[in-house]
Amino acid sequence: FKCLRGWRNERYAVAGDALKGEGDLLHCERAAAGLLGIRAYGCHLNGYVRDPQTRQLKMWTARRSPTKQTYPSMLDNLVGGGLAAGVNPRENIIKECYEEAGMTADFVKSRLQDVGAVTFFLVDEDRGWVPTTEYTYDIELDSDFQPHAIDGEVANFMLLLPDEVLQHLRNGEFTPEAGLVTIDFLTRLGVVTAANEPDYLEILTRMHRSLSAPG
Amino acid sequence: FKCLRGWRNERYAVAGDALKGEGDLLHCERAAAGLLGIRAYGCHLNGYVRDPQTRQLKMWTARRSPTKQTYPSMLDNLVGGGLAAGVNPRENIIKECYEEAGMTADFVKSRLQDVGAVTFFLVDEDRGWVPTTEYTYDIELDSDFQPHAIDGEVANFMLLLPDEVLQHLRNGEFTPEAGLVTIDFLTRLGVVTAANEPDYLEILTRMHRSLSAPG
Repeated sequence: FKCLRGWRNERYAVAGDALKGEGDLLHCERAAAGLLGIRAYGCHLNGYVRDPQTRQLKMWTARRSPTKQTYPSMLDNLVGGGLAAGVNPRENIIKECYEEAGMTADFVKSRLQDVGAVTFFLVDEDRGWVPTTEYTYDIELDSDFQPHAIDGEVANFMLLLPDEVLQHLRNGEFTPEAGLVTIDFLTRLGVVTAANEPDYLEILTRMHRSLSAPG
Repeated sequence: FKCLRGWRNERYAVAGDALKGEGDLLHCERAAAGLLGIRAYGCHLNGYVRDPQTRQLKMWTARRSPTKQTYPSMLDNLVGGGLAAGVNPRENIIKECYEEAGMTADFVKSRLQDVGAVTFFLVDEDRGWVPTTEYTYDIELDSDFQPHAIDGEVANFMLLLPDEVLQHLRNGEFTPEAGLVTIDFLTRLGVVTAANEPDYLEILTRMHRSLSAPG
């Protein structure tokens, strides 16, 4: 199986019914989850800047390292990553903020905003069937902020105008997760609206799918 | 039929397939839509204030007039209303902002933000089966702002802390539409999170339902 070449040494869990006192029913290597159709969870962060004078919105976008196991060289959110079994989503994104963008925990905690989650069914030749939920976060950054990757998983960062982000989305340059998290951001910030997107309601519904897969 | 006592003289439309050049297939008096299971559309506005010093969030909440045909004396968003056939959602909310809260069109246009839509299936003894989509908008207001209703449909306005809003929600004091729009707001602003709400993902999915009803 192609997906197993990218072994992660990270465990995904299928949780039992907490109300019945059940613990986890199954743990599974992250790279193999798509073989079993197990739900995957992750956390993504939208980093954005508003010009102090004009209020013009810009969005930090990361280019993934060409050596990443999944989606090499594709575009990504400022920070993002999978959520291993038993890890709190907010604590996870705070940790990733340091590893992937050099932001300290204290800095992140003072600005990080929980903004929801997107849920979708990813079907990918390499990864298999991966019903996915991404917990989403926003962080507003100052105009002189500069991210830098500690762990080397990012090739470079770009600060893009909304129209540039939309063009990269249309070109299919974003990973599936980051693309959807970015579209959610652009709807919440009033860039993508009912007036400029004919499939507005359909998009809002389809990125909050009801999934029956175990997770 | 009980719902017909509240005749509105407002028409809801069932739209044809615009891609095939079809116009509206059916127009229906708004109060009767629930008899036929026709989708209803509306627009709701979350008005909020942040304390200039502490950044403490407060939310404007309206108490509906005791003489309203639907949900008299219940709690509502700062502004909200049904969307008649052929009306642009953003233009509609701008018009309602004046009628329901005394905000001029120029003022609203300079601050109004499109933030998405919630879609749910309302089943109500009085109104019937009403699959509903509410286009949602946010407006940040200054701390000295005071809304006043022009059309007399609001009994009074209250500026509430998030905890007070949550308590009113738990008490069932909000209309179904306003309650859901408020929950969406509280998730986007980071008040309701994965850490404090066990049904977080379920709520996010269920307020963006896929509906097959005509509308």
